Amino acid sequence: MESTITAAQTIMERCEILSHYSEEPDRLTRRFASPALSQTKEAVAGWMQAAGMSVQYDAIGNLIGRYEAEVPGAKTFLLGSHLDTVRDAGKYDGPLGVLTALACVERLHQQQRRLSFALEVLAFADEEGLRYHTAYLGSKAMTGTFPPRLLSFIDADGISMREAIRTSGGTPDPQLLQTPHWQPDELIGYCEVHIEQGPTLEAHNLPVGIVSAISGQNRFSIDFVGQAGHAGTVPMELRRDALSVAAVFILTVETLARGTPGLVATIGQLSVQPGASNVIPGQVTLSLDVRHQDDTIREQACQRIYEQAKALSEQRNIRLHWQELQEDASIACNPHLIQLLERAIQEEGYPLHILPSGAGHDGVILSKLTPVAMLFIRCRGGISHHPAESVKVEDVAIAMRVVERFLSLLA
Amino acid sequence: MESTITAAQTIMERCEILSHYSEEPDRLTRRFASPALSQTKEAVAGWMQAAGMSVQYDAIGNLIGRYEAEVPGAKTFLLGSHLDTVRDAGKYDGPLGVLTALACVERLHQQQRRLSFALEVLAFADEEGLRYHTAYLGSKAMTGTFPPRLLSFIDADGISMREAIRTSGGTPDPQLLQTPHWQPDELIGYCEVHIEQGPTLEAHNLPVGIVSAISGQNRFSIDFVGQAGHAGTVPMELRRDALSVAAVFILTVETLARGTPGLVATIGQLSVQPGASNVIPGQVTLSLDVRHQDDTIREQACQRIYEQAKALSEQRNIRLHWQELQEDASIACNPHLIQLLERAIQEEGYPLHILPSGAGHDGVILSKLTPVAMLFIRCRGGISHHPAESVKVEDVAIAMRVVERFLSLLA
Repeated sequence: MESTITAAQTIMERCEILSHYSEEPDRLTRRFASPALSQTKEAVAGWMQAAGMSVQYDAIGNLIGRYEAEVPGAKTFLLGSHLDTVRDAGKYDGPLGVLTALACVERLHQQQRRLSFALEVLAFADEEGLRYHTAYLGSKAMTGTFPPRLLSFIDADGISMREAIRTSGGTPDPQLLQTPHWQPDELIGYCEVHIEQGPTLEAHNLPVGIVSAISGQNRFSIDFVGQAGHAGTVPMELRRDALSVAAVFILTVETLARGTPGLVATIGQLSVQPGASNVIPGQVTLSLDVRHQDDTIREQACQRIYEQAKALSEQRNIRLHWQELQEDASIACNPHLIQLLERAIQEEGYPLHILPSGAGHDGVILSKLTPVAMLFIRCRGGISHHPAESVKVEDVAIAMRVVERFLSLLA
Repeated sequence: MESTITAAQTIMERCEILSHYSEEPDRLTRRFASPALSQTKEAVAGWMQAAGMSVQYDAIGNLIGRYEAEVPGAKTFLLGSHLDTVRDAGKYDGPLGVLTALACVERLHQQQRRLSFALEVLAFADEEGLRYHTAYLGSKAMTGTFPPRLLSFIDADGISMREAIRTSGGTPDPQLLQTPHWQPDELIGYCEVHIEQGPTLEAHNLPVGIVSAISGQNRFSIDFVGQAGHAGTVPMELRRDALSVAAVFILTVETLARGTPGLVATIGQLSVQPGASNVIPGQVTLSLDVRHQDDTIREQACQRIYEQAKALSEQRNIRLHWQELQEDASIACNPHLIQLLERAIQEEGYPLHILPSGAGHDGVILSKLTPVAMLFIRCRGGISHHPAESVKVEDVAIAMRVVERFLSLLA
């Protein structure tokens, strides 16, 4: 059998190959149900078959490679990730998880080994939601939680999701899309390998880390409404500058998040009205994104941020509009699967590091059907969703060995 | 002779009439060299002639009404303001100054009085610079400081300034536009009546105020460059958030301006890159506008703001790009003319209030040729450049009486 480093090199080469299947000539963009995604799935399906897997596509276009157990009728353990990308993406977010899972099966096949359970490698057709602004289409269809109304959504070119699924060879049948691919009792669990997309493992000098939970999240839209005025003629003491209040708010949020371990809070969008260099800002609209693995801590933080926004708006005679756009609860990873990942990492000789995932992943959806776990791989500078996304082949080899050991422990 | 309140009512009615000459059906927009501006000038020219003035247009389309002195060969005192507007303007910014000057001459004419100097009422064809983004076209042409390269500027409809001047009946001849309308020794000075465009007179409960100087101004474009990243996965302590630094900067500027009497500093534009709710701001670009009537104080303030921006960028590991877009020196109003305005206000029985003009006015340009003075009229809520612009007829009557008394004192 080839060495793990050679197998990891193959994973890296395959990530490189897949990165050339793109909708845009000079950068990687691979939307749901695009021809570029179909080419990608065909390539992966070919590697799956060579690794001893049977291959099928479901109604929405997820690719499923199945490697049977020692005995018929055994349960199934799921591995995998997604093959779609954001616009101007890196090579690893998604494909690395699919190809690491595939490599593990390939090595079992090379050893002519089978486990006491079947393995399925899932390659989801949509996780990022770039085309229809609807994340997790792939895992929603596989778990039967796909909302049929989405079929009428229209992309930027006026193509409905229904038409896109049909054109790419799928079956946009609401009933099929609402039928789970498995019964819960057929499944043992799901484990996804993914780049961290953050700088924590790098900062701790660790190749891999175990995900404790996928953080819950609130998203707000907030307006501060003051009084516009002439930048030259309104004295400072008579101003009701909406941007000054927004600045105090931004720093209040930062201070609160820094003082709350594990909390992240981000103001990523901010617009000023009227927005002329010689006009005092009359209104500022900004976004607020708050995440924590513990829902109570997140909810309390949101409440405190709101109260502080209210207090400082009143102090400065500014009107506050506060709108909650989204609230998602946290998804805990399964303690038993986490324990097995811990043992696997320790037996490989690496220190343990357990961290929440601030980004969403298909595990959020799969957790409705089966226990989930995630293994993060260190990525350079924490950069993701960018061509500069980078992982080390040595880290990929370690992740692969950890998954192999995890599957042995599970068996 | 009619009472001053009746004359002030006429001024208000005429402002109302002129507000209907607009390029847009539902709001007041009157750009340089537009048909709406020509209609406005025709109406004003008619009133000027009825008030005993001879009327002429210069090459760029400024309207000049002349009321002769008692004796030929006397010097000339200038009154006036502009007739163009911003987009979605109020009724008073500009026209009020022209029509108040016109009313003063009209009342001299009704009394069959002439002064020891001639009066000219100037109605400038462009002060706001809406059409070609070039302020003071009118006063620049009258003082011979018009830069001929501006003739090639193109408006939003692709019409060159040269063509616009010709179409509206002017003569786009560079030589004419660079010839002053008067020799400096023909002139005594220039006095403009204008709404304050700020809330200071209202806050002091005063109908009028005297302008000490038209403030000098700096305009900067500033970038803070940090590191974009995933809002869910980058812990607070590892972020280089450009918006957090911008927030500290905004509050630093506000604190410095509040602590420096007479200084105004405004951040009116701010944009965030990449600008997605789930991405940490990697870059913030913002405008900074700093004004003070004392150039030294303004320059020192700009230097301190720059040093603080540099220090806080270094503290937070953020790159700073600092670009000065514009620097205009302050224009002092003439001490002798200020003194006469003071006497006139006191003789009318009102308290004195002297304030700088943070907004630019044609006096900036005319000061190159002759002493200038300005009288501000209180406006409601300090609002200008907006349909809600509002002045009281009583305040207009007071301003008119002050100008009449000022002219008598000058005579």
